[in-house]
Amino acid sequence: MRKIHVIGIGAGDPEQLTLQAVRVLRGTDVFFLLDKGEVKSDLTQLRRDMLDAHIPEGTYRLVEARDPERDRKAGGAAYSPAVGDWRSARAEIYERLIAEELGEDESGAFLVWGDPSLYDSTLGILEEILERGAVAFEYDVVPGISSVSALVARHRTGLNRVAGPVQITTGRRLSEGFPDGVDDVVVMLDAHQAFRRYADQDIDIYWGAYLGTPDEILASGPIAEAAPRIERLRAEARERKGWIMDTYLLRRHPKGE
Amino acid sequence: MRKIHVIGIGAGDPEQLTLQAVRVLRGTDVFFLLDKGEVKSDLTQLRRDMLDAHIPEGTYRLVEARDPERDRKAGGAAYSPAVGDWRSARAEIYERLIAEELGEDESGAFLVWGDPSLYDSTLGILEEILERGAVAFEYDVVPGISSVSALVARHRTGLNRVAGPVQITTGRRLSEGFPDGVDDVVVMLDAHQAFRRYADQDIDIYWGAYLGTPDEILASGPIAEAAPRIERLRAEARERKGWIMDTYLLRRHPKGE
Repeated sequence: MRKIHVIGIGAGDPEQLTLQAVRVLRGTDVFFLLDKGEVKSDLTQLRRDMLDAHIPEGTYRLVEARDPERDRKAGGAAYSPAVGDWRSARAEIYERLIAEELGEDESGAFLVWGDPSLYDSTLGILEEILERGAVAFEYDVVPGISSVSALVARHRTGLNRVAGPVQITTGRRLSEGFPDGVDDVVVMLDAHQAFRRYADQDIDIYWGAYLGTPDEILASGPIAEAAPRIERLRAEARERKGWIMDTYLLRRHPKGE
Repeated sequence: MRKIHVIGIGAGDPEQLTLQAVRVLRGTDVFFLLDKGEVKSDLTQLRRDMLDAHIPEGTYRLVEARDPERDRKAGGAAYSPAVGDWRSARAEIYERLIAEELGEDESGAFLVWGDPSLYDSTLGILEEILERGAVAFEYDVVPGISSVSALVARHRTGLNRVAGPVQITTGRRLSEGFPDGVDDVVVMLDAHQAFRRYADQDIDIYWGAYLGTPDEILASGPIAEAAPRIERLRAEARERKGWIMDTYLLRRHPKGE
């Protein structure tokens, strides 16, 4: 039976690999690297460097493929169907890779930034392939340090306050309103700096970009003061590198605190 | 200047240590192990085993102390003040340990289960000590694999659904009502199996105890069917080992799905 490992490789720092991830990497025959196009080629190179650092050359094969383009222009209600189309297109590519490049008794791996459980489609895609039934395999998941954990570790703060809840959500959802019932909110996938909407509120922001890499940028403070600073840092970095990956924690002060 | 490392050591599996954690462990002079009493001595032993496995003997000192008893009988509104008292009592112990056991140019470490950012008091306690001003030190945080990541990795599922939010909260809060605005909820610190309240709803539960250890137990399914099974497993395990650490994800199906 073919075996697939979905390996969380941490937020960007090669030292954030776990011992389990390193052991599983070393036992893997084929690595599938999906390239999202030129702007993210830094990330593909980082993954290649991780393999070079931890696995003896010649003991594995690297199979590279191009990710399908996601229709990013689709907005609002159209978002989910567009994601669905993209995911099925991706499932077709993954299915072909597994069927054609992985021998019956071999193991393959997908390397996922951060943790495979947070805003990553790999597990859903593997389930979709299994449901189609054209190719059979077993799979397991190696958890990784998420960008959420990396962010708050660098800021030396917690995700939640004493016995309080924390919500992890997207920029799109934050732009629709501050989530109900929580004062601590982590925001991912925010291309439009939704935090700006809350700049007049009593909120602290803890922001980070390119976490764990040599390009890491951190900024924090009361949002009224920090928001314009973060906007500037973000625009400069995006201009310089051609892409940006960032995330942030918003911590609202309950009235009277 | 004294240096303190707050090191996330993963959910229980010694292989969940990151390469960064191992490097920092090896550079640490003094480890502070706080014992919560006999029932949790398994956990203290697991930490000792981790040190034995990764650091040459004779290159570090181990300082053990007893955690203050937390007043667990305090209920409802009394919870936060009781936690505050307990935290200050703990801060006094930590302050004394750092001042008396750590030389001016030495580094010390606290080993935290899971990730130091989730429902752990170490960072808050260190800030409290610094504010008192009796002892000075620098500190940093090494992120770890949280029990949340370990749970969903073992169940091979994601925390969130496509572009959806996820909330992490406590059993106490879940017993007051299902959080607003989310269908995916991770519950920690639940001594009273608050999930039972939702057994008549269209919810799937993914539960795990002693994650990553040889005693690990997993159970999942539609909550109506799984809740009684989990109650039984939990009671048996608690009886057998004398303590339990568990966590779970509730996944509510939107109407019509």
